[in-house]
Amino acid sequence: MKTSIPVNRDIQAQKKQRANAFREKLSRQGTLIVNLVSSPGTGKTSLLEATVRELGDRLRLGVLVGDLATDRDAQRLAPLVPVKQLTTGGACHLEIALVEQGWQELGEPEIDILLIENVGNLVCPASHDLGEHLRVSLLSTTEGDDKPGKYPKMFRTSHAMLLTKIDLLPYLPFHVETAMEDARLIQPKLEIFTTSATTGEGIPQWCKYLEQQREALVTR
Amino acid sequence: MKTSIPVNRDIQAQKKQRANAFREKLSRQGTLIVNLVSSPGTGKTSLLEATVRELGDRLRLGVLVGDLATDRDAQRLAPLVPVKQLTTGGACHLEIALVEQGWQELGEPEIDILLIENVGNLVCPASHDLGEHLRVSLLSTTEGDDKPGKYPKMFRTSHAMLLTKIDLLPYLPFHVETAMEDARLIQPKLEIFTTSATTGEGIPQWCKYLEQQREALVTR
Repeated sequence: MKTSIPVNRDIQAQKKQRANAFREKLSRQGTLIVNLVSSPGTGKTSLLEATVRELGDRLRLGVLVGDLATDRDAQRLAPLVPVKQLTTGGACHLEIALVEQGWQELGEPEIDILLIENVGNLVCPASHDLGEHLRVSLLSTTEGDDKPGKYPKMFRTSHAMLLTKIDLLPYLPFHVETAMEDARLIQPKLEIFTTSATTGEGIPQWCKYLEQQREALVTR
Repeated sequence: MKTSIPVNRDIQAQKKQRANAFREKLSRQGTLIVNLVSSPGTGKTSLLEATVRELGDRLRLGVLVGDLATDRDAQRLAPLVPVKQLTTGGACHLEIALVEQGWQELGEPEIDILLIENVGNLVCPASHDLGEHLRVSLLSTTEGDDKPGKYPKMFRTSHAMLLTKIDLLPYLPFHVETAMEDARLIQPKLEIFTTSATTGEGIPQWCKYLEQQREALVTR
């Protein structure tokens, strides 16, 4: 086993370097990179649709969507926004090399925000820097309010958390305060939004946060 | 990189061997091993509670529950059934070594069914044999009916699929037939059950299936 450890460390250091270089390159042209992470089916693609509808008139947006297989998400988003599908071929998370490739395929556009939808997985993507400025985790109200403590690394490494599908709250044993407290025990600085892509609730607040973060990037 | 490949293959072969030995050992004493896999928050623990309530009078059951952190699930189940928590310390899936350890801590009981709840992750647990006779994937109706095609390995390697939380169907854009067709494209032999741990719908059919599978194990 010992022989492989230095090799692995070297690879991880190289990936980190590439992620930093990508972040710096896009910072210089004023493009905010957002990495959306969550379990499968929390509504990442629906959130992207709602975000593009809300922000698309004011900001130039681009999207990369990651999946193990299929280009279903890119097909959903293509009518709304420039988008490329990243298919991992079975791997459980996106890596910087695939993001760089998608960015090239997108034509390296001069946009304000690049939104990256990671593979649906509340564990592995937490350990991979995609060059993002913001990591945003989604927690669906249908998943249960006990999840932050059970999947701590994802919430600890996130800047913001969206509690999604809040339109379903009347039918669920989910307590918003419990989930928020659980998440803040792990990451006290977490910005928290409650949203529903179905009713549109919370989408303006979330989009305003994105605009502010983008503004902070270009004025710093 | 090349130096690490034979080592890795060797480790994988050893794990497979241990999984096979565990399966054979429990087969001899008539214990069916069931590996429950799914995204976080599909209701694995609620399904276990409902299953224990339905089957607990007729069969001897034991449970191992896996998580990255916390013993919340074991605490929930402890009043109902002999249970041990397996905590992976951040790893994204259970492995046979941890299952063997949990089995010992459970006291290696002479039970009819050992139910193992894997870490919530629709990707990585698909690649790890825990010595189970049955792999059962849960897909929550709240996750969307497009998931089998997007996470193919999990459904391809499963014997059965449970569509959970069907009590929420009136409030969701989820089509049961679409999800079933998508799953059967990947794995035509999949046994499919629609269940709600909240209303109890489908639980007797699922439990009957477990009983039949256990019966088949001891009579073969």
